[in-house]
Amino acid sequence: MTPPAIILSRPQIGENIGAAARAMANFGLTDLRLVAPLANWQERATIMAVGASPISDGARVFQTLPEALGELQLVYATTARERGVSKPILTPPEAARRLREASAQGVRTGLLFGGERAGLDNDEVSLADAVITIPTNPDFSSLNLAQAVLLNAYEWFRAADETPPSRTEYGPLAHKATREDMFNLFEHLEDELKKSGFLFPPDKADSMMRNIRAMLNRADFTDMDVRTLRGMIKALARGKHRLSAKPPVKDA
Amino acid sequence: MTPPAIILSRPQIGENIGAAARAMANFGLTDLRLVAPLANWQERATIMAVGASPISDGARVFQTLPEALGELQLVYATTARERGVSKPILTPPEAARRLREASAQGVRTGLLFGGERAGLDNDEVSLADAVITIPTNPDFSSLNLAQAVLLNAYEWFRAADETPPSRTEYGPLAHKATREDMFNLFEHLEDELKKSGFLFPPDKADSMMRNIRAMLNRADFTDMDVRTLRGMIKALARGKHRLSAKPPVKDA
Repeated sequence: MTPPAIILSRPQIGENIGAAARAMANFGLTDLRLVAPLANWQERATIMAVGASPISDGARVFQTLPEALGELQLVYATTARERGVSKPILTPPEAARRLREASAQGVRTGLLFGGERAGLDNDEVSLADAVITIPTNPDFSSLNLAQAVLLNAYEWFRAADETPPSRTEYGPLAHKATREDMFNLFEHLEDELKKSGFLFPPDKADSMMRNIRAMLNRADFTDMDVRTLRGMIKALARGKHRLSAKPPVKDA
Repeated sequence: MTPPAIILSRPQIGENIGAAARAMANFGLTDLRLVAPLANWQERATIMAVGASPISDGARVFQTLPEALGELQLVYATTARERGVSKPILTPPEAARRLREASAQGVRTGLLFGGERAGLDNDEVSLADAVITIPTNPDFSSLNLAQAVLLNAYEWFRAADETPPSRTEYGPLAHKATREDMFNLFEHLEDELKKSGFLFPPDKADSMMRNIRAMLNRADFTDMDVRTLRGMIKALARGKHRLSAKPPVKDA
């Protein structure tokens, strides 16, 4: 599936071209097109792009926007303000969803961004199929060019990303504790707490243990965590004896 | 609802602190905390923050991470790689959803980011409740610090943003065309096309008009668009007469 081309119209700052290239690389985009960029953008762009300099170095430069959009079939223009354009205004995730849908059918797509100074003018917006507006704090809505590219590239990537919203990796040596691990822990702990005199008065012992079990269950322990805890309980239970003994001599 | 604090641990580059402040302002965050930043970060930060310099100028500086996290109750650490930490790994939107949920209940939240050189170390990660990993292109996964802040701040904002995924604003003078506007347009057009000889051969005229109606319906016209189109049809239909007449003299 071909990702969207990124078209920057009249970019003024080489650093932003480089940062845009880097954002593209982060999210799997490669086709960068520049319309009438300010002269001598290359050096600053290469520095900012870091490992993504092949994208900025390989950017195609056009003199006019229609030339840059040439063979593309679906183009969305990113604007900060909505200007009564009578065309659909999309959020970045909705735009990404539609771009994916179109790309999956072989449609060539592009995302168009205006220069740092004034964004896209109405003539440029009129060449696009729809407008993307990034929702921002109305009191501080001015987004840097490279950051606007980043957010749209991120949404493109995310639209097909299958990472589960939440997961826990226990590593090769641990797994989530079994119920039996937990029951044994509770028994061990209750036994030692009884001996220590903590579960007092006796008629409150049951409800105290219920609270302790609930607290420990919430922690979502691994089997290794349970072994560690049982070692801690054992060490603490014999604590008084250790205190009266001399500490082991280290590196003697 | 108090937005999450942003905590940058050992940031090395003043520009990134400024760019992080700007990203925070874009999405309504204000509480910036720095742990042991490299000396003389202020000047470069202020330049990069542009209008958001009150956030970087007002950043609180701490010597240790536990001091910076002090009164916070729910802290997520952003890491590039998952390192077998036995704690939940969240996507940015899932993290934003949980942060909103917690904030709505008065829980004080924070987002923790590591320095440019090495990110967060395992000790720092162990102070957090969960880890956020931003899904990226595995071949180019290194995200700039300010961009990682931007993406998480954007997700925080988006989690409560009610902008419809797609909408069309017609401006104060236009509205979506009524069915009657469209029927009148179709009739006018069919009438003129018949006279012009375009609907030929006659037994194909009906299916030709069906295709034309489908094509025009897809364009989702406003009432103003329909008036413009009917003016165009009228002008084109009398075109031959105009061509033989002299063009009107301008500014004579």
